[in-house]
Amino acid sequence: VDFRSDNVSGAHPAVLEAIVAASRGATSSYGADPWSERVTARLGRVFEREVAVFPVTTGTAANALALATHVPPWGAVYCHREAHIHVDECGAPEQLTGGAKLIPLEGAHGKLDAGTLAASIGGRGIVHAVQPAAVSLSQATEAGTVYRPDEIAAIAEVARRHRLVVHMDGARFANALVTVGCTPAALTWQAGVDVLSLGATKNGCFAAEAVVLFAPDKAEELGFRRKRAGHLVSKQRLLSAQLEAYLTDDLWLANARHANATAQRLAAHFAAVGLTPLVPVEANEVFVSVPAPLAAQLRERGFSFYPWSALGPSACRFVTAFDTRPEDVEALGAALRHAQI
Amino acid sequence: VDFRSDNVSGAHPAVLEAIVAASRGATSSYGADPWSERVTARLGRVFEREVAVFPVTTGTAANALALATHVPPWGAVYCHREAHIHVDECGAPEQLTGGAKLIPLEGAHGKLDAGTLAASIGGRGIVHAVQPAAVSLSQATEAGTVYRPDEIAAIAEVARRHRLVVHMDGARFANALVTVGCTPAALTWQAGVDVLSLGATKNGCFAAEAVVLFAPDKAEELGFRRKRAGHLVSKQRLLSAQLEAYLTDDLWLANARHANATAQRLAAHFAAVGLTPLVPVEANEVFVSVPAPLAAQLRERGFSFYPWSALGPSACRFVTAFDTRPEDVEALGAALRHAQI
Amino acid sequence: VDFRSDNVSGAHPAVLEAIVAASRGATSSYGADPWSERVTARLGRVFEREVAVFPVTTGTAANALALATHVPPWGAVYCHREAHIHVDECGAPEQLTGGAKLIPLEGAHGKLDAGTLAASIGGRGIVHAVQPAAVSLSQATEAGTVYRPDEIAAIAEVARRHRLVVHMDGARFANALVTVGCTPAALTWQAGVDVLSLGATKNGCFAAEAVVLFAPDKAEELGFRRKRAGHLVSKQRLLSAQLEAYLTDDLWLANARHANATAQRLAAHFAAVGLTPLVPVEANEVFVSVPAPLAAQLRERGFSFYPWSALGPSACRFVTAFDTRPEDVEALGAALRHAQI
Amino acid sequence: VDFRSDNVSGAHPAVLEAIVAASRGATSSYGADPWSERVTARLGRVFEREVAVFPVTTGTAANALALATHVPPWGAVYCHREAHIHVDECGAPEQLTGGAKLIPLEGAHGKLDAGTLAASIGGRGIVHAVQPAAVSLSQATEAGTVYRPDEIAAIAEVARRHRLVVHMDGARFANALVTVGCTPAALTWQAGVDVLSLGATKNGCFAAEAVVLFAPDKAEELGFRRKRAGHLVSKQRLLSAQLEAYLTDDLWLANARHANATAQRLAAHFAAVGLTPLVPVEANEVFVSVPAPLAAQLRERGFSFYPWSALGPSACRFVTAFDTRPEDVEALGAALRHAQI
Repeated sequence: VDFRSDNVSGAHPAVLEAIVAASRGATSSYGADPWSERVTARLGRVFEREVAVFPVTTGTAANALALATHVPPWGAVYCHREAHIHVDECGAPEQLTGGAKLIPLEGAHGKLDAGTLAASIGGRGIVHAVQPAAVSLSQATEAGTVYRPDEIAAIAEVARRHRLVVHMDGARFANALVTVGCTPAALTWQAGVDVLSLGATKNGCFAAEAVVLFAPDKAEELGFRRKRAGHLVSKQRLLSAQLEAYLTDDLWLANARHANATAQRLAAHFAAVGLTPLVPVEANEVFVSVPAPLAAQLRERGFSFYPWSALGPSACRFVTAFDTRPEDVEALGAALRHAQI
Repeated sequence: VDFRSDNVSGAHPAVLEAIVAASRGATSSYGADPWSERVTARLGRVFEREVAVFPVTTGTAANALALATHVPPWGAVYCHREAHIHVDECGAPEQLTGGAKLIPLEGAHGKLDAGTLAASIGGRGIVHAVQPAAVSLSQATEAGTVYRPDEIAAIAEVARRHRLVVHMDGARFANALVTVGCTPAALTWQAGVDVLSLGATKNGCFAAEAVVLFAPDKAEELGFRRKRAGHLVSKQRLLSAQLEAYLTDDLWLANARHANATAQRLAAHFAAVGLTPLVPVEANEVFVSVPAPLAAQLRERGFSFYPWSALGPSACRFVTAFDTRPEDVEALGAALRHAQI
Repeated sequence: VDFRSDNVSGAHPAVLEAIVAASRGATSSYGADPWSERVTARLGRVFEREVAVFPVTTGTAANALALATHVPPWGAVYCHREAHIHVDECGAPEQLTGGAKLIPLEGAHGKLDAGTLAASIGGRGIVHAVQPAAVSLSQATEAGTVYRPDEIAAIAEVARRHRLVVHMDGARFANALVTVGCTPAALTWQAGVDVLSLGATKNGCFAAEAVVLFAPDKAEELGFRRKRAGHLVSKQRLLSAQLEAYLTDDLWLANARHANATAQRLAAHFAAVGLTPLVPVEANEVFVSVPAPLAAQLRERGFSFYPWSALGPSACRFVTAFDTRPEDVEALGAALRHAQI
Repeated sequence: VDFRSDNVSGAHPAVLEAIVAASRGATSSYGADPWSERVTARLGRVFEREVAVFPVTTGTAANALALATHVPPWGAVYCHREAHIHVDECGAPEQLTGGAKLIPLEGAHGKLDAGTLAASIGGRGIVHAVQPAAVSLSQATEAGTVYRPDEIAAIAEVARRHRLVVHMDGARFANALVTVGCTPAALTWQAGVDVLSLGATKNGCFAAEAVVLFAPDKAEELGFRRKRAGHLVSKQRLLSAQLEAYLTDDLWLANARHANATAQRLAAHFAAVGLTPLVPVEANEVFVSVPAPLAAQLRERGFSFYPWSALGPSACRFVTAFDTRPEDVEALGAALRHAQI
């Protein structure tokens, strides 16, 4: 039973069906296909405004292209010190921006707050300093917490005051959305987000993410940047078909609800044996401190999960996904209750 | 009937089946999965030596990453002036190498020859000049011709003398291979190729290419470069499953034979009405000069194809693929014979 | 006697005096000094309009920064195939633009013409193609010829039609200016030049060049780019004092007239022995075909000069400078007349 | 009286004389001149081993080129969070490395320590993480403190264990050297430094720094990198003559001793009125907390200095230089004693 990450899963059956169906017949390449057009239209409805949509195959590509389009090479990108763009992308944002600087900030439970951001911004107009250019929020965060619209709006207000673009790394956007319970619009552009990396791979797709621009003025530039980074897929319907299936009949929300609920159940099992999660469980990740002997017993019984040293020497991360089986969660609960430590 | 490109097709049924099958169950992400391991092993057998394999989703990514790993930012890459890397990748090689320079060379029918290459190399050790670093060959070429092993070896001999890495852009490698009729090894490393961009998308996959290193010393670097360009797909089995199906039961060769044979048939139809192809048809592309009235009639009857001004004002390109239907080719033949011009 | 280049000279005495004088006392660093302010003001008068001025120490820096400020990473820069930016800067424009592509064009005697440029521009709006962004002219050219205002205007007209920025690499701007005999304004912005790399090092300074922007909208960006390329000199008065002396009392024009006149005299000596220059001598460079035995005799007598294989197997280049001594030129003339070949 | 920085000064008379003297006659350009050769030889004697020397005009260029030559684009550079390369170079290291990441570390009084460094290094071999590549020390630090050889050796030992290159930003190397009182060798390669940015501009030159490589294997690469960043000055004798004068008769040490002694005297004046420096004064910088009314009075009397908010709301920085006049320091002392606050 694999709780290592939500990317150890395959794709949802509906996504697979869409891939197979999309394969039929000839169609224009490089995004001039009906699937891509429908995805853009659908995301327009989802977000209640016109959007420009750029499907890509990885979240790293989505993030780095989104930032590169809005941040000059001499720009500063403020982000949480645990942000995926800062610690897990091997410098992709630096590569695709041409050398912009990510400024890691502190914040409880993986979240930035407006005050810390405001206090960190500096150097505007000083030629020796990188120039404040963007703030990037992970939704859900790397600690499995979520931003509420008012928190985003407070950050965006600081951003506006300092002329920063607001980027949201939505690798787990759906998980955050169903927790918050608001509209996609309320969680993004209505709160001040300018550009979203919309993740779908971790929540039911096979490899499909999209950069969503809420203002169209950078669309042409993003098109060139995507191509020149090798991210314009010729048979783009492969990506768009996945995204279409993902959004159809609210599959994305159902998947996210399942993953989140499963994580809550997992957290309850841990709490029941006295292992209260280290961070509030708000999406599909559970961080707990697991004593080494217990961790060993769980692994012996076939449960996989990662140690998470950032939260302490015995901290571990358990991630659920759209396809996590309830019986596997219950099995973990039983293993916890019967563990001999 | 769409003869615009071999990327207007979907994927081969066997590839789709492999995608669906690969979706089952949890597996390690980022390439540590059985599909990826099997693909590497299989390509080792295909090429009769140990290889390092890096699946990616686009040919542009494969080419740019392959070059970036072997060419310093101050390096020169010699290529044909029609090369895809030079004219169709929006500067991706420049982006991922950090600003290397592509040196476009002349050559009949889209092919470089050893003499032209030798005469063009210069500047070694001069600090003002970009440094000779690589030669890149397209196989098949952008003109639909192919390099024979002895031609490659002659170029590679020049390359060795000048310490150039030999890169092959094999976007249509299978099409070239079945035409030449030698082994994959004979067409690559045995002739002096150091690194291959192995295309599969155009010949039956949905989105799957691979950088194949014939020497392992650059593998670690390529791994970091792939990740930092956003090209390390988390659920990599999606790519590897396609590549595995592509190579299984020689599907890649069968697909390429079909496409090439169809192109020959197409060329024969053109020749039958006096339109001899402008370039020898050696793979799956036919370049002919189509008088404007004839082109208009063909388009009216539902045939799509691109004008190709590089070969003349009325030149056009017709591309076949693994799924081109013989009846469509015959229909084009009939349309040609009955055209009123 | 050194005719290898105009950078084998030291600095003009007036420039040295200015350096020494500028050293006195404390002043603000990074360009906020009176010398820098005066240079900007003076160049405003020289060019008869407000300009933004960015002193740097090398022509390569001036060119690459000027281009980087006006050309996106996916941009194309059209230039002559002999252009310094293309063959003598080790890829500096590619480095500082983030990977833009230089498109080398043919042209007699080192000069681009409007027709060739117009015929070469393409790909606008096509995501696979680098985007037309700039044209760069060398004034004087690498072949020692000069552009007249009407020639520049014709090129600039093509540029305007295709939304290209017009850059002038004025490493030998003064030499061209005194040949043409027009105003600096007429040779630049009035003819359509947007940005000038104003050379001074080759014509009497020690190390002083300047990027001159004829429109101020890119000044802030250029400031950041200069700093981040390491080209913002802390004690900038060292550069500005040189430039001020260079422009004072028309020293730059006197120096250039001397160098050009000396080159004419040199050319006459060659012509007198039947060695007509290979290219019209319009600035301070003389290209002649020198038979090997003659070249050897000249070298034995202490004359240095470079072979110039681009113009033929026995072609050589002789360059004069602001401090070339007439007696040395006459000595060369005598050596030519008495040579035994 | 200007205490803002040691770059508000001009050049030392001996340096000016050297510039003037170096201007005479023709010599080879781009570093193949006797001045440059002598500087390399002299630095070999200064550092008691063979070195490769690359003069440039700015410290930012020296640092960024030194790092770019030793750090891959996916590399991590550990440095103090106040390091000039991190906060004062507008991202030049990121630009010239192709996007490497600077990892800012804490440390008292501007200094890194071995333990903090060791605890911060991570991610080796993990494809998602930038790879540990270099540690950079500022000598003297941005807080005006200095590293002793044993401190450097301890850091270098950690570096060796983790395969990091050790870079020293020696913008104020001479100031540190005379404080420590050891040999240049003991303060650099004997303690484990691999590459030094040797500053000279702040301590008596006009614009002259040098990258000094203690191992020659990267010299060729650095040559190309310097050229392609626009930092290969054609009349390089201008730089080398400055450096030669700087090193002749130990001018650099005398200049540094003067600046340091003046700073001590300044610190004593502050201490005498109860304003103990906030950081130990070990080079030529004094940081003190100056109450706003006192700061205003000092400014009214003609003393210039910068506020230094990093050390507190009323912190200020006073910098002395090779040419700081004792009477000006005494005048500041008198102003402090007679201030009415």
